[in-house]
Amino acid sequence: MKKLMLAAAASLATVASPLMADEGMWQPDQLPSIEKHLKDAGLKIDPDNLTKLTEFPMGAVISLGGCTASFLSPKGLVATNHHCAYGSIQFNSTAENNLLEKGFLAKEFSEELAAAPGSRVYVTTEVTKVTNSIKDELTDEMSGMSRYKAVEKIEKSLVADCEAEEGYRCNVYSFHGGLEYYLIKQMEIRDVRLVYAPSSHIGKYGGDVDNWMWPRHTGDFAFYRAYVGKDGKPADFSKDNVPYEPEHFLTVNANGVAKDDFVMVTGYPGRTNRYRTSAEVKNQFEWRYPTFRTILHKYIDIIEQNAPEGSDARVKYASTLAGLNNAEKNWGSMIESYGKGNLLERRQKLEADLEAWLLDNPAMKEKHGDSLAELDALIKEDLKDQAIELKKWGMSRDTLTGTADRLYRLAIESQKPDAERDPGYQERDLIRIKESLKRMNRRWDAEVEKALYKHFVAQYASLPKEDRVVSYDKFMDISNEFNATEFNDKVDNMFAETELTDQEVRLNWVGKSVEDFKNSDDPFIQLAVATYDENYKKELEDKEQSGEFKKLRPQYMAAIIDFYKSQGKPVYADANSTLRVTYGNVKGYSPQDGLSATPFTTLEGIKAKHTGEEPFNSPINQLALINAKQYGEYKDSALNSVQVNFLSTVDTTGGNSGSPTMNANAEFVGLLFDGVYESIIGDWDYNPQLNRSIHVSSAYMLWVMKYVDNAQNLINEMKVVR
Amino acid sequence: MKKLMLAAAASLATVASPLMADEGMWQPDQLPSIEKHLKDAGLKIDPDNLTKLTEFPMGAVISLGGCTASFLSPKGLVATNHHCAYGSIQFNSTAENNLLEKGFLAKEFSEELAAAPGSRVYVTTEVTKVTNSIKDELTDEMSGMSRYKAVEKIEKSLVADCEAEEGYRCNVYSFHGGLEYYLIKQMEIRDVRLVYAPSSHIGKYGGDVDNWMWPRHTGDFAFYRAYVGKDGKPADFSKDNVPYEPEHFLTVNANGVAKDDFVMVTGYPGRTNRYRTSAEVKNQFEWRYPTFRTILHKYIDIIEQNAPEGSDARVKYASTLAGLNNAEKNWGSMIESYGKGNLLERRQKLEADLEAWLLDNPAMKEKHGDSLAELDALIKEDLKDQAIELKKWGMSRDTLTGTADRLYRLAIESQKPDAERDPGYQERDLIRIKESLKRMNRRWDAEVEKALYKHFVAQYASLPKEDRVVSYDKFMDISNEFNATEFNDKVDNMFAETELTDQEVRLNWVGKSVEDFKNSDDPFIQLAVATYDENYKKELEDKEQSGEFKKLRPQYMAAIIDFYKSQGKPVYADANSTLRVTYGNVKGYSPQDGLSATPFTTLEGIKAKHTGEEPFNSPINQLALINAKQYGEYKDSALNSVQVNFLSTVDTTGGNSGSPTMNANAEFVGLLFDGVYESIIGDWDYNPQLNRSIHVSSAYMLWVMKYVDNAQNLINEMKVVR
Repeated sequence: MKKLMLAAAASLATVASPLMADEGMWQPDQLPSIEKHLKDAGLKIDPDNLTKLTEFPMGAVISLGGCTASFLSPKGLVATNHHCAYGSIQFNSTAENNLLEKGFLAKEFSEELAAAPGSRVYVTTEVTKVTNSIKDELTDEMSGMSRYKAVEKIEKSLVADCEAEEGYRCNVYSFHGGLEYYLIKQMEIRDVRLVYAPSSHIGKYGGDVDNWMWPRHTGDFAFYRAYVGKDGKPADFSKDNVPYEPEHFLTVNANGVAKDDFVMVTGYPGRTNRYRTSAEVKNQFEWRYPTFRTILHKYIDIIEQNAPEGSDARVKYASTLAGLNNAEKNWGSMIESYGKGNLLERRQKLEADLEAWLLDNPAMKEKHGDSLAELDALIKEDLKDQAIELKKWGMSRDTLTGTADRLYRLAIESQKPDAERDPGYQERDLIRIKESLKRMNRRWDAEVEKALYKHFVAQYASLPKEDRVVSYDKFMDISNEFNATEFNDKVDNMFAETELTDQEVRLNWVGKSVEDFKNSDDPFIQLAVATYDENYKKELEDKEQSGEFKKLRPQYMAAIIDFYKSQGKPVYADANSTLRVTYGNVKGYSPQDGLSATPFTTLEGIKAKHTGEEPFNSPINQLALINAKQYGEYKDSALNSVQVNFLSTVDTTGGNSGSPTMNANAEFVGLLFDGVYESIIGDWDYNPQLNRSIHVSSAYMLWVMKYVDNAQNLINEMKVVR
Repeated sequence: MKKLMLAAAASLATVASPLMADEGMWQPDQLPSIEKHLKDAGLKIDPDNLTKLTEFPMGAVISLGGCTASFLSPKGLVATNHHCAYGSIQFNSTAENNLLEKGFLAKEFSEELAAAPGSRVYVTTEVTKVTNSIKDELTDEMSGMSRYKAVEKIEKSLVADCEAEEGYRCNVYSFHGGLEYYLIKQMEIRDVRLVYAPSSHIGKYGGDVDNWMWPRHTGDFAFYRAYVGKDGKPADFSKDNVPYEPEHFLTVNANGVAKDDFVMVTGYPGRTNRYRTSAEVKNQFEWRYPTFRTILHKYIDIIEQNAPEGSDARVKYASTLAGLNNAEKNWGSMIESYGKGNLLERRQKLEADLEAWLLDNPAMKEKHGDSLAELDALIKEDLKDQAIELKKWGMSRDTLTGTADRLYRLAIESQKPDAERDPGYQERDLIRIKESLKRMNRRWDAEVEKALYKHFVAQYASLPKEDRVVSYDKFMDISNEFNATEFNDKVDNMFAETELTDQEVRLNWVGKSVEDFKNSDDPFIQLAVATYDENYKKELEDKEQSGEFKKLRPQYMAAIIDFYKSQGKPVYADANSTLRVTYGNVKGYSPQDGLSATPFTTLEGIKAKHTGEEPFNSPINQLALINAKQYGEYKDSALNSVQVNFLSTVDTTGGNSGSPTMNANAEFVGLLFDGVYESIIGDWDYNPQLNRSIHVSSAYMLWVMKYVDNAQNLINEMKVVR
């Protein structure tokens, strides 16, 4: 592994000063600038140690792509959430051998199972600030499209150079909407195996009912192992591969945590919107979330009706439904929190304060101009067609349409030299495209897809003609008088005739020529060919607008950063799937006047919730252990039980799932896996009174491993301290 | 007012010793025996002062019959719960002038409104132990019926002597199932007027949704005034009557309470079952509550279907439905708590321990014999027919049937000299019988009653012939093949023909002769005459069994009391609607692992719950005051708001509603109005971890009075301290 540190990246705002308690998803290199806050909160190690991505402890923190994880042994043992490994457990399950139900434990390396296709372990090895490389190619006068293309071109070139070394994956990430750019290099381990997962009756205890909820009693953890070739380099799955030996892994503290303890979470939070303008906030909460939520309800309804409980189809859509329900609850909470709070007023006040400050500071006014007004004008333009776009959303999710579109696009892009192809269709993307093509059948059912497609195209067809897609309408014979019966017959025929439902057929299309596509009589391929030009034109328009945002959003952010700097406040960037550190303390909160959420749940709470019916159906042996008060060495004397889940003030979001939670000495004390209902709006607004993350305690993990599942082999492999 | 103290009544168990924290509904004269506990909890006054029923503060505590209340001014101002005054507010409401909706405030005495017919204020003036008077007439050899009759005869005679003084109501209450008897004399004030009630949007805020729930934000208070004749004696309503001037009234502390404060509640708890045998517990929780609850569901359904939301009929059944829903939730909670806890095991252990103790103590064994076994045998016999009785329950609730039965019974009893009549049909009962006859029309709707009657008779008709009532079947033409259509036609005809739906007609039947009834062609009168003999025979059988219980239950309780005495534990009697004192502290609890109920709610919680839809529809002016943080002199600095409701550990049950909550100096600090969901099983079992009562704080009462409703005239009338 090439050792490269997060070296020269200058921090954005280094003035240590009053900031909101525990708010912030900090880039590791920013941590020394908030040392006082970290120390006040209880951090015992030097924050400088947290800035070195390839040293301890950051070297042990890895990405799964969408989830975070960490190495817990010298043999590449990876701890993450049960819900992050869910797809792999499901992938290895059959009706006869349902690992979701029974759980799974490999007692030896040889028993470990290949994870779901596409599973990856990404080890970040290098972060390079490349802002200037990109900015040098841009001018203020550029059109949106030129800007978009210029940024894309440099990014591709940086990525190509970086990926010259085999086994690595590189990406350019923009911070503050494009004010700064970083090139991040990650080793991409692609032989990932499932080592251990408790039964879903533990790993998903409480299910959707308890999702986002406290009190919580979920053993949301599972273990993977990273494998590499005998040469130590990433390799495709092979029996000859050997466990990856990370340079660093975390020590596990078997005590878990105590009330008020310092905790920090390192991980890859996906996306936040903490710096959106008041116009964007208003639109999102007052129009987009409520409207989109209605569409989502319908989407869920159609799946549930066409994949009845207990059917094979329902098993295939379990993961999809979980995601949809999650979003539905998520948006519902945000709408509720928005109604109760004053987010909009505060954003409006921030903007008014910013304007007032600019007026008081001619130099700053000179530097930042009317950046907010310009951004807001672009936002207004961008949102103009949002109602139309939302009407098209449902049909755009169709798997066969999407598959055919992507395959045809790949053929078109493949006509160009690799470096000139659009991102996502380069040589580097081929493996992932193929894996995605393989994944489809396990999560797809013709009846469900047809029902969804028919419903959502009917919605689309209700749009005025000028807002519809001419080539699509022509291909599908859609006129202003939408004839649902005829259309549905056509869809039935297309589904019956297409061969894209066959995995081999799909894979065979990779590498075919544009001519091959044009000559195909597969109806979905024909549809893709017929609509390509019009869709691509729309894509270009979107890129033009995206290029404009790449200019205006950073300008506004630069003003915001200067404004905060004038108040001595450091600024963290919105989450963007790059490695961040958030810190805080183990602490309860008041979800409601007259109620207090205490920071721990215990084994007894599992028993109290147990009904024997899903999602509260604890394994019998776990209940027996609880009844016998067999806490063993994991007993928390303050709680007189074993701690199961705990709350903290750390600032997290989706993507942080599976993140290791570390104590003041950077020992592993659990896994982050959720936030409380009241903190969902945290993606837009951190509220120190209500923002709480939910963790599964290392004490419960070890207790389940030792007493419930007899996974002593894994405990022996880890370094456990107290 | 004749001053007689609760003098010679000896306490049952005076050994001060470890008892369950805050458990117990103590007779006032028992308080000196638990002085140490009271002082430890924080009581500042001498417990001896609490034993004198006609002195301060007990002299200020009164009964409304079913609810408790207290005098808060020298002019007879009475504070009780909104839900205790609900019937009177409803009685004075019309569609055009809905006092439930608007609230009501009399700014002058002359504006005060007559309370609902039958409203009473009972001031306890004398408590006399009469155990020996009764026991002297009983022998061990008596049959159940002889015993029943003997007790009834002495009770009637004691009552008659006591009520020789006009304006008083006397009753004999048995304690410990008949181990002790007390004659209680109460002045019966029958001119009761409604003075003030906040809007139901405050007084019933949260409605059925929040019923039994915490967090709670209900302003459950209202004010009556007691009026007497100019001679100071109880009198019927008259404009010439004057406010009653009680010798004692409570001082109001405007601060409410603080966390951990000592509080005590004095009131008239109705009924508890803390000493029932394990056989009774098992039957009640495993058969009777679950079975009865199903019947109740049906009962509620039928009313809701036949009295649709918004109909006049629904208004008439509002109070009935509230009661039924309350019972439904109540039983549901008890079934749930029973399932989670180990009540049955503990009762079984108590009985085993008692038996072991008796075996170890020959003298005690000699004294108490096989009292438990004998009682259990009787219980078994008593429960034999319970499934049949429950099938008959629904039809037995029919108002017209019940009215006709009662009127005919009155005619029959009136043939005897007053002293020989059955209790409930003596001269002393006439006023209440008439008031009940008047009340009917406001709570009765023919369509609802017919639907209920038809459903429940069909249930009854499904019983085997030998379990049915021969005379009823004959009158109603019910054969083994129940013909619902024919039966329903008959019921429709009876409802159409009866004149008992007319208030004047009902009242005219009072005083008519048995012959008059026999000659009547009113179908419900005819039914009453036809079934009287058979029903009366059943009643006698019940009395025989009741007489047996009067022998065996006291024997078992005597054993229990001796057993507890041997452990130094004082024993309080099960609640029996007599005046009791319970004490405890202001304290939260944990309703669930990971959650803590904090002991206070605040004004802000009202706003947070407000949706604008019932039952969370706060008056706008209250919301405006909350938004403006206009706490005034009622601000609690620890809460930085006004306290609304609070939790305490006091041991209460139905009948305690409206009880004054007093602090360590016996100042009024609020009104008890509910218990939390987890404490409903408290009627059978006090759990110090979960038993919490809910009070409305005096601070919130005064804040609403002053700022929301401008009831300064009433505040001025009270003695308010801090």
